[in-house]
Amino acid sequence: MREIGSAIQQGARAFLRRQYRTIAMIASALALLFAVAIGLQKGFTLGLETAGAFALGATFSALSGYIGMHIAIRSNTRSAAGSLRSFNDALTIALRGGAVSGLAIVSMSLAGVAILFYGYGALGPTTNSATYNNCLSLGYSVAACTAQATQDTVILSLVGFGFGASLVALFAQLGGGIYTKAADVGADLVGKVEAGIPEDDPRNPAVIADLVGDNVGDCAGRGADLFESTAAENIGAMVLGVVLYQYFGVAGVIFPLVARGFGVLASIVGVLIVRAKEDETPMSALNRGYIVASVLAAILFGFASWAMLNPSQPTSTGGSTWIYYWICGLTGMVTAVAYVWITQYYTEARYRPVRDIAKASETGPGTNIIAGFSVGLEATAIPAVVVSIALLVSYWLGATTGIPGGGVYGTAIATMGMLATAAYILAMDTFGPIVDNGAGIAEMSGVSADVRKNMDKLDAAGNTTKALTKGYAVGSAALAAFLLFNAFLSEANVKSVDLAHPETFVGAFMGATLIFLFSAFAIRSVGKAAWTIIKDVRAQFKENPGIMAGTSKPDYGRTVDICTRGALHEMIVPGLLAVITPVAVGLIFKFVHITYVNGLPLAAGEPVGGTLMVGTIAGILMALVLNTGGGAWDNAKKYIEAGNLGGKGSPTHKAAVVGDTVGDPFKDTAGPSLHIVVKLLSTITLVMVPLLL
Amino acid sequence: MREIGSAIQQGARAFLRRQYRTIAMIASALALLFAVAIGLQKGFTLGLETAGAFALGATFSALSGYIGMHIAIRSNTRSAAGSLRSFNDALTIALRGGAVSGLAIVSMSLAGVAILFYGYGALGPTTNSATYNNCLSLGYSVAACTAQATQDTVILSLVGFGFGASLVALFAQLGGGIYTKAADVGADLVGKVEAGIPEDDPRNPAVIADLVGDNVGDCAGRGADLFESTAAENIGAMVLGVVLYQYFGVAGVIFPLVARGFGVLASIVGVLIVRAKEDETPMSALNRGYIVASVLAAILFGFASWAMLNPSQPTSTGGSTWIYYWICGLTGMVTAVAYVWITQYYTEARYRPVRDIAKASETGPGTNIIAGFSVGLEATAIPAVVVSIALLVSYWLGATTGIPGGGVYGTAIATMGMLATAAYILAMDTFGPIVDNGAGIAEMSGVSADVRKNMDKLDAAGNTTKALTKGYAVGSAALAAFLLFNAFLSEANVKSVDLAHPETFVGAFMGATLIFLFSAFAIRSVGKAAWTIIKDVRAQFKENPGIMAGTSKPDYGRTVDICTRGALHEMIVPGLLAVITPVAVGLIFKFVHITYVNGLPLAAGEPVGGTLMVGTIAGILMALVLNTGGGAWDNAKKYIEAGNLGGKGSPTHKAAVVGDTVGDPFKDTAGPSLHIVVKLLSTITLVMVPLLL
Repeated sequence: MREIGSAIQQGARAFLRRQYRTIAMIASALALLFAVAIGLQKGFTLGLETAGAFALGATFSALSGYIGMHIAIRSNTRSAAGSLRSFNDALTIALRGGAVSGLAIVSMSLAGVAILFYGYGALGPTTNSATYNNCLSLGYSVAACTAQATQDTVILSLVGFGFGASLVALFAQLGGGIYTKAADVGADLVGKVEAGIPEDDPRNPAVIADLVGDNVGDCAGRGADLFESTAAENIGAMVLGVVLYQYFGVAGVIFPLVARGFGVLASIVGVLIVRAKEDETPMSALNRGYIVASVLAAILFGFASWAMLNPSQPTSTGGSTWIYYWICGLTGMVTAVAYVWITQYYTEARYRPVRDIAKASETGPGTNIIAGFSVGLEATAIPAVVVSIALLVSYWLGATTGIPGGGVYGTAIATMGMLATAAYILAMDTFGPIVDNGAGIAEMSGVSADVRKNMDKLDAAGNTTKALTKGYAVGSAALAAFLLFNAFLSEANVKSVDLAHPETFVGAFMGATLIFLFSAFAIRSVGKAAWTIIKDVRAQFKENPGIMAGTSKPDYGRTVDICTRGALHEMIVPGLLAVITPVAVGLIFKFVHITYVNGLPLAAGEPVGGTLMVGTIAGILMALVLNTGGGAWDNAKKYIEAGNLGGKGSPTHKAAVVGDTVGDPFKDTAGPSLHIVVKLLSTITLVMVPLLL
Repeated sequence: MREIGSAIQQGARAFLRRQYRTIAMIASALALLFAVAIGLQKGFTLGLETAGAFALGATFSALSGYIGMHIAIRSNTRSAAGSLRSFNDALTIALRGGAVSGLAIVSMSLAGVAILFYGYGALGPTTNSATYNNCLSLGYSVAACTAQATQDTVILSLVGFGFGASLVALFAQLGGGIYTKAADVGADLVGKVEAGIPEDDPRNPAVIADLVGDNVGDCAGRGADLFESTAAENIGAMVLGVVLYQYFGVAGVIFPLVARGFGVLASIVGVLIVRAKEDETPMSALNRGYIVASVLAAILFGFASWAMLNPSQPTSTGGSTWIYYWICGLTGMVTAVAYVWITQYYTEARYRPVRDIAKASETGPGTNIIAGFSVGLEATAIPAVVVSIALLVSYWLGATTGIPGGGVYGTAIATMGMLATAAYILAMDTFGPIVDNGAGIAEMSGVSADVRKNMDKLDAAGNTTKALTKGYAVGSAALAAFLLFNAFLSEANVKSVDLAHPETFVGAFMGATLIFLFSAFAIRSVGKAAWTIIKDVRAQFKENPGIMAGTSKPDYGRTVDICTRGALHEMIVPGLLAVITPVAVGLIFKFVHITYVNGLPLAAGEPVGGTLMVGTIAGILMALVLNTGGGAWDNAKKYIEAGNLGGKGSPTHKAAVVGDTVGDPFKDTAGPSLHIVVKLLSTITLVMVPLLL
């Protein structure tokens, strides 16, 4: 066990090292480009400072992925060992292991933004001399110009930080997602299908690559993803807080950080309170903790609103303004709960959709695929309606205060509410791979049937929590979208994103097309990377006939290495596509002018806004299709394996396995990467604003 | 043969009769609703008149479907008989059979619009007394008020006509598409898989239903679809012509009709010129005709522009204005050729995408599905870029004339250019099912091997032409979209569709969601309707053991009837969804106000515009995914059946069959229906304008 365990750890670390090296090269090149572009527009000190913030965001994002994996690799054995003492021990060890990375990731997003805000904030006039001097030359006072230069610096560095975070998260999730599924598919095809050896057989040279994949995809990728989410939302809300400075002062700018901090406290209490009875289903214990965390977060959110959101100028709602914003936060919390519930409905075998897919498998793989794909497509509707209602309600509440821009700030606060319990959700998410590995370890070490049953129960719950997190991540991306749009619009000084302008319509069209093309590349890359593994395994079997005979050991490291290189090679094109599309739209319409508004050519920011907004809409819907469809196929297969409709080995099961294979790159590669593409669109459009003007 | 043939004809007619009855009920209810709503706003005479125009459009649309099927059922035997004389006879009979329905459909769309324009046009002041009297009471002259009332009447009746056409087309395509695939899948599953009898075995009670399906899906559905396309585009361009009345007078309004008429002439010449040498590939003969039709259409288009598009007021381009618009038309023609080429690239076995899918089938159905789906997703990018360029170029050319609204009129003329050869394309499309059936008839009547080879060559060409028409239909929907948006905006008096308003963003989100949900229902409905057939066939086998023994005949009519009822039942929900979504968005935001622009609540037309525009973007992309993916899967299977990668019966072939099964509802049910949904969105938003004000 130790031998295999250390091989996994080595492989995972080797993957991350090589991946981070590739990402560092891409990120440095982009950072340089943007630094020069910003430098040319706003002075090179500011350009360098933005590049520094970018580097900080990128590093923290990478660190988040690393921490997630680091903890998971260590907690799995401990959770398995805990299961020997009691069910409760196994569960709490796994959840607390997950909480370490959850809390670390959310805290880092807070720390990073706080460092920039306080560290760079004071430097405004010194680093942003272009804005400062220009302001002075227009005859404004020193105080006003200091404020303007500071605002410029703070926003640019926040945005650079967010862009760094999302860029690294995209490549981490994409590379990890391709790796994990390529190794999975490759190992299965060449081992089970071609060589006829069972799954996880040590004679298969790809077996370690497969085990490494679970860690780099689920833990490292997701950690970077959710760091990026919380960071991007902090930044979007703070940019808006700057716009509302005259009403709420600094309190309005740092409110997101305080609210998030309270959410971390609530999540800690929630994690600590979880205790499972011996015969309890793990989900009900986990849900208890979630409810405690949510209620506590709701109360603390109200306290923070009461203490900080008191307008210094008259508003239509007077002294009760904070209550309006508190209700916005509660709206977000309710949305989170709704998303968790909707995801369960579409992906759990208890409900109609998964049962339908299982039933359709009786008539073969074709009908299984049709049923699963239509469940995925259907699963977009209720989430879209729920998030639309949350958006309209929170905008309306915020707008009722009469504060200009108060509506958008309402949606920002709803997003904060939705993300208040992010640390708890993240803990549940990382709980998934920990118990998944833990169950495997318990199995291999020959524990008693009772203990094994307990670990299997935890494993099943882990599958649910992983699915929930994806739903939650899409929901928060959707709710945050409107806030991030408005951050872009106010930065780019774009008044409207009017689809009746042909440039804007084309920009919007390109945004949606980007999502479809990105999905094509992400899904296909798995197959391509899997081929590199298949070829290597075939070569190893040929070079060394002792492997199949069991007399000599295969070269696991070589397959890990080849899979790593294959996955990293495949991640480049889709990753760069997401970066290049909005930049290309911006640059083309900076120079090509078709329509004129009031005699002036249409600002390039407007088509870019179209790309951002319609890309976001398409991205959210496509992510829902891929995540939900993939999860539903997976669970339809598990439902049949549990003995229904003929059980394991029946033709129905074989058909369901096809659906599961199709669903794998959907739910573990393309879907999770699309969340990040949606948020990358927001950060890259923000960071490219100086290029557009 | 005669017996089977008449059974097919009876079944097809029975389906259409029942389908048209269902559609008539739905259409009447909607017509009544809209007539009352318009009547309340603008007077009941006008409401009745709009309902009359609606009925005319609906009837013509239904007639188009009927003609398409009627001709196809009769030309197939003649083409097969012609093949006994010469290859050229078989080809020209099939093409000219197709041309009958192509020319009839395009001519009917011209005739319908002309009837309304000249018949209703003069009635303005008498039927639209509300507008007329209101105008007089504001102190305008009798002449001005007559003109205004006439304009109102003409536009409302044109729009009613278009809505009637697209509503019937949607249900015809949806019902026919569900029927054909449900019968296909049901007959295969219960016959080949369960009972183990070969395809098309007369013992299978579903065999006639399957043969009926080919006619009602491909011919009747597509006929209504393309009638609707040409009618909607005529109407959109004419509405814009009304806006530009002061520049081009009546000539600008009827230019679309004249240009379309010239296109019909060019298509006739193209059809007549086609002659195939004995050893020629049919596609090169068909392409020759297409080139002649295109070149002739380009010249005639230039003549029509020169004769009709002479501005009566000064413009920036003076006497050469018509040249600018001619180039717009040429842009559209080039776009049509580009779409035809792109579709071939993605769906023909000569090129990489289909080869990739075939190759992926070697590792099983899972990888086949992944490869095909990613080809479908990828196939959105180049078409989206091409249509965007065409849009920008034609808008820019039109705007350069300096005529207000001239840019949009440029895109309208580009669309006309794209649709100039519609009759020829339609002839090639209907050619597809004719030679498909013809090849079957030749096979069954035991002709010589040479003759059979010729019919098979025609059949293969028919598959290509059917795929091309779908690409062409999506392309023209995309190019027409911008024109139809602007018709809506000018009718609804909406100045911008600004995604920065939360209502508009939500409207846009709902538009894209509608496309995903509609696709889910359309795809799933095939499976559900197939189940009704499977159950009936099982029951027949059980009730009458003589069927399988071959001693007594199954009740074909009962299965046809059950499949008909199943398909019509399944078409209702997705069909109504497409109608209700934009109406719901409009009604909600008519009463719920979140944002205020210049102190006034946001006009409900703006969120509806968002639904229309982003629904269109999502609809075009999704249609491309489903059509191209489905076509590519089909041809990957055929490529393997031609003896590549193991050939028929190999595991690779079995995997490819799974892809083909999945692709069937994609390319024959959901994809073609989505073209119509996109255009229905345009006509329903136009027709509901009086409700929004």
